[in-house]
Amino acid sequence: MENFDYENRTRIIFGKDTHKTVGALIKPYADKVLFHYGGGSIKKSGLYDEVVKSLKEAGVEVVELGGVQPNPRLSLVREGIKICRKHKIDFILAVGGGSVIDSAKAIAMGVPYDGDVWDFFLTKKPIDKVLDVATILTLPATGSEASDNTVISNEETQRKVGYASNKVRPLFSIMNPELYFTLPENQIANGICDMMCHVFERYFTNTLHTDLTDGLCETTLKTIMKNGLILMKDKTNYDVWAEVAFAGTLAHNGLLGLGRVTDWASHRIEHELSAIYDVAHGAGLAVITPAWMRYVYKDNIGMFVQFAVNVMGVEGSFRDQEAIAIEGIERLKDFFKSLGLPVTLKELGIPEDADFELMAKKATWYGTEREMPLGGLKKLPWQDIVEIYKLAM
Amino acid sequence: MENFDYENRTRIIFGKDTHKTVGALIKPYADKVLFHYGGGSIKKSGLYDEVVKSLKEAGVEVVELGGVQPNPRLSLVREGIKICRKHKIDFILAVGGGSVIDSAKAIAMGVPYDGDVWDFFLTKKPIDKVLDVATILTLPATGSEASDNTVISNEETQRKVGYASNKVRPLFSIMNPELYFTLPENQIANGICDMMCHVFERYFTNTLHTDLTDGLCETTLKTIMKNGLILMKDKTNYDVWAEVAFAGTLAHNGLLGLGRVTDWASHRIEHELSAIYDVAHGAGLAVITPAWMRYVYKDNIGMFVQFAVNVMGVEGSFRDQEAIAIEGIERLKDFFKSLGLPVTLKELGIPEDADFELMAKKATWYGTEREMPLGGLKKLPWQDIVEIYKLAM
Repeated sequence: MENFDYENRTRIIFGKDTHKTVGALIKPYADKVLFHYGGGSIKKSGLYDEVVKSLKEAGVEVVELGGVQPNPRLSLVREGIKICRKHKIDFILAVGGGSVIDSAKAIAMGVPYDGDVWDFFLTKKPIDKVLDVATILTLPATGSEASDNTVISNEETQRKVGYASNKVRPLFSIMNPELYFTLPENQIANGICDMMCHVFERYFTNTLHTDLTDGLCETTLKTIMKNGLILMKDKTNYDVWAEVAFAGTLAHNGLLGLGRVTDWASHRIEHELSAIYDVAHGAGLAVITPAWMRYVYKDNIGMFVQFAVNVMGVEGSFRDQEAIAIEGIERLKDFFKSLGLPVTLKELGIPEDADFELMAKKATWYGTEREMPLGGLKKLPWQDIVEIYKLAM
Repeated sequence: MENFDYENRTRIIFGKDTHKTVGALIKPYADKVLFHYGGGSIKKSGLYDEVVKSLKEAGVEVVELGGVQPNPRLSLVREGIKICRKHKIDFILAVGGGSVIDSAKAIAMGVPYDGDVWDFFLTKKPIDKVLDVATILTLPATGSEASDNTVISNEETQRKVGYASNKVRPLFSIMNPELYFTLPENQIANGICDMMCHVFERYFTNTLHTDLTDGLCETTLKTIMKNGLILMKDKTNYDVWAEVAFAGTLAHNGLLGLGRVTDWASHRIEHELSAIYDVAHGAGLAVITPAWMRYVYKDNIGMFVQFAVNVMGVEGSFRDQEAIAIEGIERLKDFFKSLGLPVTLKELGIPEDADFELMAKKATWYGTEREMPLGGLKKLPWQDIVEIYKLAM
């Protein structure tokens, strides 16, 4: 086990009707908030009105900024920063999925900072001060509700870049599974895949002596898979949503990776797809992750056998480890397919003549001072990443 | 799943040499600390000197109070409160096991409070302010390093009472597995039992739809058992200690009980033993917990079958659920025996004519306005508790 240093301040308020308490929860911290959200779905569902009512009843003044898109844009972040400064706002309430929360986190980083917020993403320099962010999660998937990071897309440079710091963890997040009943099937499937991949990035490691976190990863994956399948047929089942949503938070709050060298190659490889083709992150991961597995499994066959046996339920002779490992990966692909997810770049709509070399070079920051191979389990320079894109085609 | 509200601010700094950073970690918060510890073991091991050196190098002034005993005493807590007030100290560093940390938490509660700190324990009234506590854990067992509670013994009234609040969670805890190599076998065994029982109190529940936390509990138990057995033969194995220590924190930081109705009957039944006979908490639990299981298993046979199969590895026909459930409990007793733990009150040195009725009535606060049956899985009035003591004899 590796040394680790972990803190996670995010309070999770979970369950029925919890979103109605948002005003009272915020009031001790702020008299005015930026209410940040995406499109019209929260207006249609009535959530918007409930949130505004709760805030007003608690005496919290509301300035709003909607319009967050999937793969949240730097331009809207900059607009949010201006609004907060103009209205002297120092608390942001994000009501939405991971994109809205990531956008809120970036605004929170930018407001107290003299320069341009994109600096943090490009240089990874530490944040000094950051505004408080609270969230009401409407789409369990990215884990951003309790994670230490945010991923923002710069539409001018087609760069999608993450930034991590304990300071961007939300102050609190409200999760009411009832809010997820109306999500469209494809978003649910994308979310399930995203959660699972957050676990995979931590699970697949060369670090030894990780019994506890191995087990935590495996049980989280099994919970997501079992309940995710039920959701696809019964998406108004409160208890099933509760399992999936809670597991989605655990998948990405940092706990499952403690003491392990983590990977993140698949995420970075996928980010380059999203940055150029604007595909849904979860769908992109359903394509890239199994391709990554196929490309790297021989470098740690024991890890992939463990995954196959403990998570995917593969049985068979351990004398043929390769067969077990491959069967595990195939079953994962089958699982993704059963959710209606794409498992090839073709199905994602990526053209055969896509510029894999460009994407691979961007993923590794080729030719810049940040240039580095991707991955923890296997170090992947840009040439390997081209091969993974090709495998995924 | 039940609604829940969870926050845990405790930062965990885990790994080799981490204790040497304590001064630098404290300095941003305090220029002066109460250094609270137990007996002479930290002086013998050299840890005392290393801590003082680190604090001095960081420019942190030290006032010390040693002498914490197992089942930490209210009288020493009151002394600590006086010392902090006299020296205007508002940060406490606890270096020790759960008793030292619990004692530090109680001091932290008492210093800013006008009345007597015991009020909080008797009335459960909310705390307003509490001093910051940091810890260097020297005995993984109680989970107090990241838990929201403290248990203090009032030697005058022979009452051992707990108090819980998120405000008493330590600011940070340092855990270096190397510090555990010199622990005596019986303390290691007690600690393993204590951790397991922290999981049991959360695991055994009537709440349904708890896939995720069921799995978290089961994997934590299996990690503790597998590695705990190795420790009894190889107590200077860093990686094995790392698994056990990390699992011990997870066992009691609250995560494993989220969304579940928890139990705590065994703990409360054991507390009455410790309060009168001053037995080690872990040893007392090794006796009481299996007796409690025997007494209640019929009320939720499915839960005990799950435990037997998923944790204790029992196989057999599910058509005879009782046989599987009992086999699980017997295997647990055998496991405790294999660690050298007592499994009967006799072995603990409790006389046959012990006043079980008195202890059972104290456990349920019989005849007071706090009177309440114990337990979540099965409600136990004092008469049932007498039966459990008798079963444990």
